[in-house]
Amino acid sequence: MSKITFKFENGDVNEVFANEGEQILDLAKKANVVIDAPCSGNVSCGKCKVKLLEGSVKSEITRHITEEEYADGWRLACNSEVDGDAVIGVPDIASAFKNRMKVADLSTGEEVKIFNKTIEDIKATGIKVGNDMEILEIELAEPTLDDTTPDNTRLTDAIREKYHVSFVTLSYNVLKDLSSVLRENNFKVKCVVGLKNDRTVVYRICSPDDDPILGGLAVDIGTTTVSALLVDMKDGKILSKASAGNGQIRYGADVINRIIEAEKPGGKEKLQSAIIDETIKPLIQNMCTHANIDPINIYRMTVSANTTMNHLFAGVDAGSIRMEPYIPVFYTTMALHGGNLNLGIHPDAKIIITPNVGSYVGGDITSGVLANTMWNSEELTLFVDLGTNGELVFGSSDFLMTCACSAGPAFEGGDISCGMRATDGAIEACEIDEETMEPTFKIVGEEGTKPIGLCGSGLIDVIAELFRCKIINPKGKFVREGERIRHDKFGMGSYVLAFKEDAGSVKDVEINEVDIDNFIRAKGAIFSAINLMLSSLDFDPSVLDRVFVAGGIGSGINMENTIRIGMFPNIPVEKYFYIGNSSLSGAYATLVSNEAEEKVYEIGRGMTYMELSTNPSYMDEFVAACFIPHTNSALFQ
Amino acid sequence: MSKITFKFENGDVNEVFANEGEQILDLAKKANVVIDAPCSGNVSCGKCKVKLLEGSVKSEITRHITEEEYADGWRLACNSEVDGDAVIGVPDIASAFKNRMKVADLSTGEEVKIFNKTIEDIKATGIKVGNDMEILEIELAEPTLDDTTPDNTRLTDAIREKYHVSFVTLSYNVLKDLSSVLRENNFKVKCVVGLKNDRTVVYRICSPDDDPILGGLAVDIGTTTVSALLVDMKDGKILSKASAGNGQIRYGADVINRIIEAEKPGGKEKLQSAIIDETIKPLIQNMCTHANIDPINIYRMTVSANTTMNHLFAGVDAGSIRMEPYIPVFYTTMALHGGNLNLGIHPDAKIIITPNVGSYVGGDITSGVLANTMWNSEELTLFVDLGTNGELVFGSSDFLMTCACSAGPAFEGGDISCGMRATDGAIEACEIDEETMEPTFKIVGEEGTKPIGLCGSGLIDVIAELFRCKIINPKGKFVREGERIRHDKFGMGSYVLAFKEDAGSVKDVEINEVDIDNFIRAKGAIFSAINLMLSSLDFDPSVLDRVFVAGGIGSGINMENTIRIGMFPNIPVEKYFYIGNSSLSGAYATLVSNEAEEKVYEIGRGMTYMELSTNPSYMDEFVAACFIPHTNSALFQ
Repeated sequence: MSKITFKFENGDVNEVFANEGEQILDLAKKANVVIDAPCSGNVSCGKCKVKLLEGSVKSEITRHITEEEYADGWRLACNSEVDGDAVIGVPDIASAFKNRMKVADLSTGEEVKIFNKTIEDIKATGIKVGNDMEILEIELAEPTLDDTTPDNTRLTDAIREKYHVSFVTLSYNVLKDLSSVLRENNFKVKCVVGLKNDRTVVYRICSPDDDPILGGLAVDIGTTTVSALLVDMKDGKILSKASAGNGQIRYGADVINRIIEAEKPGGKEKLQSAIIDETIKPLIQNMCTHANIDPINIYRMTVSANTTMNHLFAGVDAGSIRMEPYIPVFYTTMALHGGNLNLGIHPDAKIIITPNVGSYVGGDITSGVLANTMWNSEELTLFVDLGTNGELVFGSSDFLMTCACSAGPAFEGGDISCGMRATDGAIEACEIDEETMEPTFKIVGEEGTKPIGLCGSGLIDVIAELFRCKIINPKGKFVREGERIRHDKFGMGSYVLAFKEDAGSVKDVEINEVDIDNFIRAKGAIFSAINLMLSSLDFDPSVLDRVFVAGGIGSGINMENTIRIGMFPNIPVEKYFYIGNSSLSGAYATLVSNEAEEKVYEIGRGMTYMELSTNPSYMDEFVAACFIPHTNSALFQ
Repeated sequence: MSKITFKFENGDVNEVFANEGEQILDLAKKANVVIDAPCSGNVSCGKCKVKLLEGSVKSEITRHITEEEYADGWRLACNSEVDGDAVIGVPDIASAFKNRMKVADLSTGEEVKIFNKTIEDIKATGIKVGNDMEILEIELAEPTLDDTTPDNTRLTDAIREKYHVSFVTLSYNVLKDLSSVLRENNFKVKCVVGLKNDRTVVYRICSPDDDPILGGLAVDIGTTTVSALLVDMKDGKILSKASAGNGQIRYGADVINRIIEAEKPGGKEKLQSAIIDETIKPLIQNMCTHANIDPINIYRMTVSANTTMNHLFAGVDAGSIRMEPYIPVFYTTMALHGGNLNLGIHPDAKIIITPNVGSYVGGDITSGVLANTMWNSEELTLFVDLGTNGELVFGSSDFLMTCACSAGPAFEGGDISCGMRATDGAIEACEIDEETMEPTFKIVGEEGTKPIGLCGSGLIDVIAELFRCKIINPKGKFVREGERIRHDKFGMGSYVLAFKEDAGSVKDVEINEVDIDNFIRAKGAIFSAINLMLSSLDFDPSVLDRVFVAGGIGSGINMENTIRIGMFPNIPVEKYFYIGNSSLSGAYATLVSNEAEEKVYEIGRGMTYMELSTNPSYMDEFVAACFIPHTNSALFQ
């Protein structure tokens, strides 16, 4: 047995014992060391770079590691095997997901800017904000020797009488302390109830002097990032918001790899634990600490997520999602309550999962449609959600049609050698001087932050600018020479975005032809899917009144550049709107409004799912779109 | 800190550290060492006798320890304090409750004899055996690219169609493995469902080749003893039966002491854990092992218990039960499911608690009435349940009236110096030769078992025989002299049942005047309660058509002797019937029959509760009955 020590930049240390020959990336998974490996250890993405600090590992030089880097100790975790004791440094960029939790306290009344499409837009459609959570004040007759009605009947009878409801049941939590709470408060109490139709559930009872929180939780579970809102359901006020990397990332960057991992023995439980215990529960605890409430006061939770993510969240078999005929276990399910999952919220809290439409169009999309209100407008709208997968919805108040395309993770920085999420050090916007070929950047983070890599919007800009400056040709090959242009011994060209000395990284930040090719295939998948969906209805992009773009690609997305590179159709740029995280907005609306909840189910039922992969034209359309901007350049003139 | 080591007769050892001055009985509670202390450590019952094996404790001689015993190391745990390291022997009789679990495997078809009143009697009333558990076979259309209905809807739709029910919901447990179970069985499965009205809950799905068990569990939680039946709900067949001491015994012998213990911080959780984790869960596991089934296949559980026991089982505040105006938290509650309690049964299993009628007439009595079928007969019936408390029900198909009397634990061997439960070594029947005053016994256990003490039925016999032989007078004082008669230095008389050399114990087995006095008060409480309840309706005992006696007092109860000592009214002995554990019989009926479940609720609602303690005649009646047989001897001629 050898001892492998993982050392994080923040000083944390994780020790594990391993047999010779074990792969370092696998070992890291076992040791719960989060190393980003979007390609799941296939030695193709080059993201799992770690630094050998002491001892040795058995490893080879790959195209992702230069000889200089190798000499400096850099190795790919997925291409290294245990070869005796070793100390391995895990750089922040590789372990970004676990620690990058962001929590904002909004109890100070700070303006909430998470929604481009806000609850106000939803209210404008006629949907009322209002849910079944209420606080009732009630005073009971004190028991006597002549009136020995037991406590539970005494309370439920009083509620039925005062509030004219037929059925009142007590949560087990209430029953346990009912006697003492009633007596400590002289039989005058406040009740937190869920009041739906004429059925009332009492979730909590407390002193009449208390001001009980009606906590609600809206969560968007993205394949890469999880975002959450803690909400006061009395007025819909957001008490806290938070986001963190999806703890499942170490089991693969995309849904397919996660499903495969979940199919292994005990895998379903591991994946569920990664999203619940490692991701959502800490988010809840952090938000609750900020807002100074106990999570037990959360009585309703809405979850918007793609089909795989909501299955893995629920701990449900996801295997059939990835295999023809691609059948999920549920579109909607009412089976989940707080007590089924280890979240620390009220055990009888209703967990609402926004409805799936198919195996690859999930609750994040129905939720996004709810939030962008395209279902309420006669304008023909295209909705594009750029996550780890790409999903499209086209329609209006008359019809809604949807499809998914496997664009891959390029828009979130995956499959790109210098790709990264839109966190500190990410280039989010770029211009290149046509003459000098020198770039200028906008970088995420404080003034003076040095560039580390490219996030989605930066990638679009860089490729659009390289093309505009004729540094690359329509196939994405480098066709100019200069200080920033390099070719390796295999002839592969690259462009240096930042030389080592100017970068926040240990080596030059560069983009190469493989990256550009990966990106072209991603944008080609999006463009061809849009085109195919429209043409299947005998439409072309000119009919579009507006295009909503959602997803983690970042608000910095330059719509002109997306058109210039042939990612989005060539219609007036004014028709494009970046609407942010519409999945979370929809989850929030569903949380605070029963009418929105009904609406999102209606949207789910009413959406027509179109399977692209079985469409005979898809491959032709896709291949034609794998060009900058397109093989049919007339489309972009 | 001193180290105190508890050593059990079976060789088990339990070590704990303590401060000087800590009481040994308290320390034993903390260390989860079960020492029987019916008086809760008030140095009055003398039951908590332990033996100092090494080291020392600070202790005094009491009336319960002779000088000879003291020299031999015997001490009362409640009267001993830590005084340095010590090794303390805990004899079997003191720690009897935890280990005396009895499990019987009935899968061999052995005849079930637990019911004097059987399910056949209940069926004879017209109540059908039949519950909502069923096994459905179902074959689903396999999904295709053109039929992508998700798994959950596919299943629920098929059940709705085939079985003509409106609402079908899936247990969360089913949802988790639905995909793989469907596919492993080519979409042909068996479903375990609860089918009530037109609502169906699917609890489990499995292969069509499986023969799923529909497990059910009936439990009688007595203050002293817990009995349980594992049942196949398909045919009502009993798969296994088991009983064990109630693990709460170390918190006090009677309900009042348990309530007081539960009111302390964390006490409710401790008491709940003692009955669930230490008592019922091991019973379930043992029965399931015997019957070779997994407890997850238990879908319905019925619990019959007195009001305090069912509150503590549910983990519900019980404090108000013991304080005027004596209000329980619930008579009935629907709040409990398997998932709320740590029992290992199906998390969605319905837990039915048979209804309470008042703070001191609980579900054991409504359950007993259900089982004895007095509600279905025009015969005027008196039902007496002799547990740690005594409860009475009087009535017929026209009316039911009930009351409780605090008879104390004498009938179960409590408050009697040589009292014990009806386990090995207990004298269960006795005759005394009037001339020689020599006793002859029937002893529980194998041939040749030596007497250790007296159980309830033996106690009745001994006192009746002592009285018949004029060894004691009507006040219970010894009035004859002889080898077996002794008087201590305070003048207290006693009768030696077995000399040390003939006994299975370290000292003579004797009964003294304090014991007799305790018993007289217990039987006086029962008799006066019967008389008061009857006279309040202008009846006297002559109207009684029959008397049902239930409880742990033992089937050996000699009814003639109960009349002779004035415990039961002087009516023809043929009218008396010992019906065993009617609480468990009723729990069993409620388990296997939905109609019985409805009936037991109806019985609960229809019973009139009479509070004896506030009746002005009660004290007079009681005092008059504290005589053998009664101050009014005309009642027994």
